[in-house]
Amino acid sequence: MFIPFAVSIYCGDSISYTYLITSGLLIATGLLMGLPKPDSKRIYAREGFVMVSLAWILMSLFGALPFTLSGAIPSYIDAFFETVSGFTTTGASVLTDIEALPDSLLFWRSFTHWIGGMGVIVFVLAFLPQKEMQSMHIMRAEVPGPTVGKLVSKTRATARILYKIYTVMTVAEIIALRLCGFSFFDSITTALSTAGTGGFSVMNSSIAAYDNIAAEIVIAVFMFLFGINFNLFYLSILKQFKRAFKSEELWAYIGIIAISIVLITIDIYPLIGSVGSALRDSGFTVVSIVTTTGFITADYSQWPAFSQFIILLLLFTGACTGSTSGGLKVGRLIILLKSGVRQLKRAVNPQRVKCVRLDGAVLEEEVISSTSSYFLIYMLLIGVSSLIISLNDFDLITSLSSVITCINNVGPGFGSIGPVDNFSIFSDFSKIVLSLNMLVGRLEIFPMLVLVMPSTWKKSA
Amino acid sequence: MFIPFAVSIYCGDSISYTYLITSGLLIATGLLMGLPKPDSKRIYAREGFVMVSLAWILMSLFGALPFTLSGAIPSYIDAFFETVSGFTTTGASVLTDIEALPDSLLFWRSFTHWIGGMGVIVFVLAFLPQKEMQSMHIMRAEVPGPTVGKLVSKTRATARILYKIYTVMTVAEIIALRLCGFSFFDSITTALSTAGTGGFSVMNSSIAAYDNIAAEIVIAVFMFLFGINFNLFYLSILKQFKRAFKSEELWAYIGIIAISIVLITIDIYPLIGSVGSALRDSGFTVVSIVTTTGFITADYSQWPAFSQFIILLLLFTGACTGSTSGGLKVGRLIILLKSGVRQLKRAVNPQRVKCVRLDGAVLEEEVISSTSSYFLIYMLLIGVSSLIISLNDFDLITSLSSVITCINNVGPGFGSIGPVDNFSIFSDFSKIVLSLNMLVGRLEIFPMLVLVMPSTWKKSA
Repeated sequence: MFIPFAVSIYCGDSISYTYLITSGLLIATGLLMGLPKPDSKRIYAREGFVMVSLAWILMSLFGALPFTLSGAIPSYIDAFFETVSGFTTTGASVLTDIEALPDSLLFWRSFTHWIGGMGVIVFVLAFLPQKEMQSMHIMRAEVPGPTVGKLVSKTRATARILYKIYTVMTVAEIIALRLCGFSFFDSITTALSTAGTGGFSVMNSSIAAYDNIAAEIVIAVFMFLFGINFNLFYLSILKQFKRAFKSEELWAYIGIIAISIVLITIDIYPLIGSVGSALRDSGFTVVSIVTTTGFITADYSQWPAFSQFIILLLLFTGACTGSTSGGLKVGRLIILLKSGVRQLKRAVNPQRVKCVRLDGAVLEEEVISSTSSYFLIYMLLIGVSSLIISLNDFDLITSLSSVITCINNVGPGFGSIGPVDNFSIFSDFSKIVLSLNMLVGRLEIFPMLVLVMPSTWKKSA
Repeated sequence: MFIPFAVSIYCGDSISYTYLITSGLLIATGLLMGLPKPDSKRIYAREGFVMVSLAWILMSLFGALPFTLSGAIPSYIDAFFETVSGFTTTGASVLTDIEALPDSLLFWRSFTHWIGGMGVIVFVLAFLPQKEMQSMHIMRAEVPGPTVGKLVSKTRATARILYKIYTVMTVAEIIALRLCGFSFFDSITTALSTAGTGGFSVMNSSIAAYDNIAAEIVIAVFMFLFGINFNLFYLSILKQFKRAFKSEELWAYIGIIAISIVLITIDIYPLIGSVGSALRDSGFTVVSIVTTTGFITADYSQWPAFSQFIILLLLFTGACTGSTSGGLKVGRLIILLKSGVRQLKRAVNPQRVKCVRLDGAVLEEEVISSTSSYFLIYMLLIGVSSLIISLNDFDLITSLSSVITCINNVGPGFGSIGPVDNFSIFSDFSKIVLSLNMLVGRLEIFPMLVLVMPSTWKKSA
């Protein structure tokens, strides 16, 4: 809270007291929660899941306070939705007039993206003194992707390296945007939102408001970079370029982006009239959606159905494992695809049992089956949540795409929540359901579901 | 072809010659195909898949001839779509005026449902002399569901028992419909369509045209019965009621139907105004959709979004394994759900590895992983096919639901292909894609995909 407080003082808006109140409440709660002595200090998978889920929920509950206390978002549920959308880097907003917000709150919105992008707990691990070495279970619950590779032997050092790369890249984007003519404030907020692949902008019409092609290219490039597995950047720093460029996921990610841009450019060309403009719109939109950022420069709801359908599929894809993006992740899709192909081969030749390989290494059957289960539970959650949202009586594609865009942490959807619309139309109950979807998506399902399973709360393992 | 020919003579329509021409072509092709001597007569899984896929495609190519030769459906691609829709028991039609068709063609449409419901090859196995005993692989490729239980030790005897039950139930429905006041012709065609859980009706406005509540109840009951695993009927005949009623799938199937009917009735009650009418409409529609029949008595596209979303989810469900219905099947959903729950439990307690049980027996891991792959490939096919269909530039829900309804062999969808619309709006290319979807869905994906895999056509295993 110190950082938005400082911004508030610096910008001279009148709501700096809200951050002080929130900080006071946070400290009080922290002290209260420290009182009961735990029976055991050992942290296993179960405790890791529960801690992370609760931390994210509490953080969002507190993070929403400045919005409501300042009167900017009077409804606390709306403020909660906005904050969850921030921390989960979704970027779906209930605000109809973003530009009316005080500067420090605009900064706070973008800052939640930046914090949420890399993970709050990873942040704590990196910068607070840490005695125990069982923090791996916590990190596993928070870092996106089917597997988490430790870069170096100690979790804390890994977290620090990740944050260093993250910070350097964010600063680079701030400088680049400044050079494109963005104001200092807009450069910082936009860069923070890009880094977390969030999508909150300080303008009502998102990045389209600037109509600045150089800035669009800068943002697109950084969205693309923040969608790459951070481990690959670390390998590059260590000059292990060969290992970094051998990543199947990286090439699949680039391939998906390239094919989508080409198809959409061809499809929207007759509508736009110029190859350059078509390429500009399709390029920015594809990168923005596939990295689950959700910045908008073009209203894709006006595009032909084929382009819209590509966007719909990209909502699911997500970028690379170990990046700040949401969605299913390309790595997981590769595993699913390869295991599907193996099953087909098995159907032809039942005798030959083959292994699934990724980047040359054999994947454990455990990873494959947990990835399949992940996909299944994910689809099931989308179905059930959309059914609940459909109680609002909007059309089917609105109900369906609101859940899809929230669980994948993208932001914009289709129908009544298209690229130029917002989420203010939903009922409070729906906003809570969608908030939970965002959290479920950001924490990759298991931590949140483990939280509500009865067996989690039984005393013994 | 003999049966529609007889109907044509009996009804006195002028197109009986078309059946003769088709029969002639069939005999000629049959003789030609018998000429090359196969190297080996052994039938493994691979050969079973290929045979069944090719048989279904050829059958549809020939089955379409009477429609085109008689001039009733001038476009051969339209006729092919209609025939595939018949054999796969989908019931999606390209016809804008069904009632204008000659009686014998109306009969042929319903008869394709009846044949396709139980499986053409099973039909052949049951009634033609059969020397080899390796027919199990063929049956496995054609009978719906993750596993095929042999009722008795010999495949042929099993096929005969299945067809006996099937025929007796169909005749029972014909008699019941006749008693409700249906004409003899309408009773037969409607019963044949119900038995295959197809959905072709002889009326333009489907079952709604009769406005006969007694008949609606009869049809709903028979749709429900044809959606039950036929093995359970066999067990009942053997007086093993206890074993039959222990089926988890049966109870889940009944539960899904009951819950859906209650929710939709509550949801549409304000719209309809009377509990009786709401119950009538929701009851018939739910049973019609869940059994993937697709008979229509109410225009559900006018219902609130919540009810529509339930219908959308039911499009996927399907009825029981080993019934004539399409869709994912309840049994498969149970396996998927149980394996998902197991994965969650594993996340909490990684030490405890549990088995998945169905009807008290432990499921093989092989069945679980192949079911997961099935679901995955199925979702992937829906995504890719919908993307192709979206080239027609209809709205997203039309593109998506056309594929969903075809791959699940239901019939009606949402948007421009709602319950009172038809498939004539699509391009020829889309009709071929949708026809393939219907075949893929009916044969449960693997046989059709195996057909296009390069490794299938390599000489040695």
